[in-house]
Amino acid sequence: MAADLPAFGFSRKARRTVTQPINYLLQVALGREDVISFAVGLVDQESLPAAEVKDLAEGLLSDEQVGRASLQYGSTEGLSELRRAIAEHAAALDGLKPEQLGIGPHNVVVSSGSQQLLYIITDVLVDPGDIVIAEWPGYFVYTGVLASTGAEVRCVEMDEDGMRIDALAAALEDIRRAGQLHRVKVVYTCDYCQNPTGITLSRARREQMLDVVRAYSTEHRICIIEDAAYRELSVDSPPPPSIKSFDRDNAQVVLAQTFSKPFAPGLRSGYAVLPDDLIGPVLDQKAVHDFGSSNFAQHLLLRAMRTGAYAEHVELLRRRYRAKRDAMLSALAGELGDFEPTATRWTRPGGGLYVWLTLPEWMDTGKDGALFAQALREGVVYLPGEFCYGPDRQRRIPTNHMRLTFGTVCEPAIREGIARLARAIRKTADEAGPPRSAPARQDAER
Amino acid sequence: MAADLPAFGFSRKARRTVTQPINYLLQVALGREDVISFAVGLVDQESLPAAEVKDLAEGLLSDEQVGRASLQYGSTEGLSELRRAIAEHAAALDGLKPEQLGIGPHNVVVSSGSQQLLYIITDVLVDPGDIVIAEWPGYFVYTGVLASTGAEVRCVEMDEDGMRIDALAAALEDIRRAGQLHRVKVVYTCDYCQNPTGITLSRARREQMLDVVRAYSTEHRICIIEDAAYRELSVDSPPPPSIKSFDRDNAQVVLAQTFSKPFAPGLRSGYAVLPDDLIGPVLDQKAVHDFGSSNFAQHLLLRAMRTGAYAEHVELLRRRYRAKRDAMLSALAGELGDFEPTATRWTRPGGGLYVWLTLPEWMDTGKDGALFAQALREGVVYLPGEFCYGPDRQRRIPTNHMRLTFGTVCEPAIREGIARLARAIRKTADEAGPPRSAPARQDAER
Repeated sequence: MAADLPAFGFSRKARRTVTQPINYLLQVALGREDVISFAVGLVDQESLPAAEVKDLAEGLLSDEQVGRASLQYGSTEGLSELRRAIAEHAAALDGLKPEQLGIGPHNVVVSSGSQQLLYIITDVLVDPGDIVIAEWPGYFVYTGVLASTGAEVRCVEMDEDGMRIDALAAALEDIRRAGQLHRVKVVYTCDYCQNPTGITLSRARREQMLDVVRAYSTEHRICIIEDAAYRELSVDSPPPPSIKSFDRDNAQVVLAQTFSKPFAPGLRSGYAVLPDDLIGPVLDQKAVHDFGSSNFAQHLLLRAMRTGAYAEHVELLRRRYRAKRDAMLSALAGELGDFEPTATRWTRPGGGLYVWLTLPEWMDTGKDGALFAQALREGVVYLPGEFCYGPDRQRRIPTNHMRLTFGTVCEPAIREGIARLARAIRKTADEAGPPRSAPARQDAER
Repeated sequence: MAADLPAFGFSRKARRTVTQPINYLLQVALGREDVISFAVGLVDQESLPAAEVKDLAEGLLSDEQVGRASLQYGSTEGLSELRRAIAEHAAALDGLKPEQLGIGPHNVVVSSGSQQLLYIITDVLVDPGDIVIAEWPGYFVYTGVLASTGAEVRCVEMDEDGMRIDALAAALEDIRRAGQLHRVKVVYTCDYCQNPTGITLSRARREQMLDVVRAYSTEHRICIIEDAAYRELSVDSPPPPSIKSFDRDNAQVVLAQTFSKPFAPGLRSGYAVLPDDLIGPVLDQKAVHDFGSSNFAQHLLLRAMRTGAYAEHVELLRRRYRAKRDAMLSALAGELGDFEPTATRWTRPGGGLYVWLTLPEWMDTGKDGALFAQALREGVVYLPGEFCYGPDRQRRIPTNHMRLTFGTVCEPAIREGIARLARAIRKTADEAGPPRSAPARQDAER
C-alpha cells in the first residue's frame, strides 16, 4: 500500500539540514578491532567514572524522598540547587563569585549536553539568511546547526592564539559597509583547546573580542557564544579566564559548558550561563523541545559536585589526558619530524582531545583521497580536515589537514597509530609526490 | 554598560513561541502545602521506582565494561539493544511481532521524552503556514510546538469515542476544496486516555482515521502522529490496538511512546516508531539538537525491560492509578452528582491521569475568573480548560471546562480536593448564578 502513497512533504528546515559527516566515519571503523581510530571525539573509556556514579546513585536512591524526587519530572530550566552550584563553579573557574559576573542561578539553564543549548540559542536568534561568524576551521556539529537554521556563515582565520581579532573586525567592517550589520546575530567560538585544532584563544584576544563585538552591536546586540566544552580539560598551566569574565554586566556572552567532557557523556548534561534577556526565549524554546533535561542525571551531578567526586574526577582526567597528549606529540615528533619539515606541522594543545596536523598542500587528506585509503589499509583512521570548515561561500576549503583525537586511544595505541599514519603518509607521498611544477619547498613557503 | 547596548535580535521562531501556561500554574501553588493541586500532570510520587532504579544502577555499574559503556556517548538514534527491545515491546502491546508491523529496531528512535520526537517530527514536516489537524481540546504542550513552528491549526471535535472521524473527513474535504491540501502535513492525536480529557479513541475509529488520512494523502503523504503516552496506563480492560497496528506497511503513522508515564519521568526517555522515510530526516535533526539522548538512562531502561522490573512496575502503577481514578470518580459523583445535573458532566477515563469536568456554560473556569480564585481560597487548583484548546482561528474557546489530574494526589487528598472544588463551584454559582436570560436548564440543552 505504501507504494501507492506519495512522499512526505518535508519542511525547508529538513531539506537544509545535512547528515553529520561523523556518522560516515563511525561506520568506517565499525567492527574492525584492528583499526586505531583517531577520528571520533569520544572521551577516554578507561577513566569513565563507573564506580563513582554507582556510589552517587546508591547514595541518592537510598534516601527515599530525594530518590523519588530525582525520578519525577524536573523543571524546564533545571534543578535549582544544581544551577546554584553551576553558577558558583563557572565563576570559580575564573576565580570569581557569581555576583562579580553579574549572574545568579536564574542565569543558568541545564540542557541535554551543551549541544542542545548551542542549538536553541542559535535558533532563537537566527533567521534563515542571518549571519553567524565562526572560526575557520571550526566545530563541525555547530556547522550543522548553522546549516539547519539557514544561517549565512562567515568564517574568521585562526592562528596559534585562536581566532584572529583583526580578521574578525575586518569581517564585521565589511558587513557594516555592505549595510548588512543587522543580519549579524552570533559570533561563535570554541575558545579552549578548540575542536578541531586544540588551540586556546589567548588572554589578550578575549577582551579584544568582546570589545570588537560590542563596537559592532549597533543595530542590535550581537551574541558571543563561548563554547567552553574543553575548558576543564586544560592540562598545562591554568587556562586564561573566560570571555564571559570580561562581560561583567552579563550582557553579551553566553558561556556554554558541559559535564560530558569532564565527567561522563552518558549523563548527557550540559549548561549555559545566559544574559537575562535571553533566558525567557531560550526556556520557551526548551519547553517545547522537551520541557527539561533528565532530572535524575541532574541529581547525580549535584551530588558529584557536593561530595567532591566531580572535582576529583576532573583532576584524574587531566593527568590521563596530559599523558595521552604528550604521547601523541612525542610520537608525531618521532615519526613525522623529518617529513617535509617546512610544510608539515601540528598544534601543541594545552589540553582537550585534539591535535591538528597540517601536511604539505599537495597532499590530500580527504575521505575519498589516496591517503585516507592508505591509512585505513595501515589500520588507522583520522578525521579529514575538510569536514571542519563551515560553508563560507567566500572561501575554498583546504584539503591538507586532519584532526587527530587522542581521547579514546590508550598510549601504546597512540604510538602505534601515529606510526601507522606516518607510514601511510610516506607511502602516499612516495606514490604521488609533490606536483613537479610546485615542489614541496615552494609549497611550504606560500 | 548593558544599558548602552541595543536588544538582541530575536528570530521569527522565538517571537512565535509562547510561554507554556503550565508555568503559571506551577507558580500558583508553589510553596503552599495546604493547596491540593489537580493542575499539574506529574506522575504519582509514592510509586516512583527508587528501589528498582537503585538495583538497576548497581547491576549496571558493577559490570565495569558495560558500566563504562553506559557513561560514554551513545548514538543519535539510541542504544541498539534498547531499540530492539522497544520494537518488540511496542508490537507486543498489539499482540504482534515487529515484522507484522513492518518494523525493526532501525525504525525506533530514542529521545528525551516523547516530547522531543513530537517536536522534531513536526519540525521536519511543517513549514510556517502549513496545516496541522489536532483534537479539540488537545494536549497543550503540543499546541506550543505548533505555535513555535508557525503551523496553522485546525481542530476536530471529540466525543466520548475520541476524535470524530466524520469531522476529520469534513475538515480535510473543506481544505481540499479550498485547494490547500498540499499544506496539510500532520494529523495529531493523543489516542489513549487523552490529555486533557482522558478519552480513548474507539477501536472502530482507529482504522477509519487511517483510511481517511490515506484517502486525502494525494498531494503528499499526511503523517499521523499517534501520541500514545498514556497507553500503558490503561487500567480497565485491555485498550484498543494502536492506530499504528493498522498501518501494516509502516507508511503513515508515527507511534510515539514514553518511559516517563509507565516508569520514571526523571530518566527523560521516550521513543517513536517511524516509517522508513522519516528516519533519516528525524535523525539529521536530532544530530544537531543533541546527537543522542542519555546513554546511561537507556542502559538502565534496557536492564529494566530485560529483568522484568519494567513490566512489574507497570502492573503496580495500573493498580495505583485505578484506585486513584476510582476515588476521583466516586468523589465527583458524591460531591457534584446533584449540581446542575443536566449541564455538569465528567469523563470516565479508562486510565491515564486525567478527568475532564464540564460545568454549565454560564460558569467560567478561566484563570482570571471567580471560580479559579474561589477554588484557590478553598485550597485546590485545577487546570482551566481554556489552556487546552489550540489556536484554531475558526473556533471560539469554551470557558466552562477543567482538567483534573489524579496522578499526583493520594486518595484521601483526592476526596478532600474534590470536596473543596465542589464547595468552590457551589459558592461561585450561588454568587453569580446563571444569567437570568439563560437559565441553567436551557444551557444544558444547547
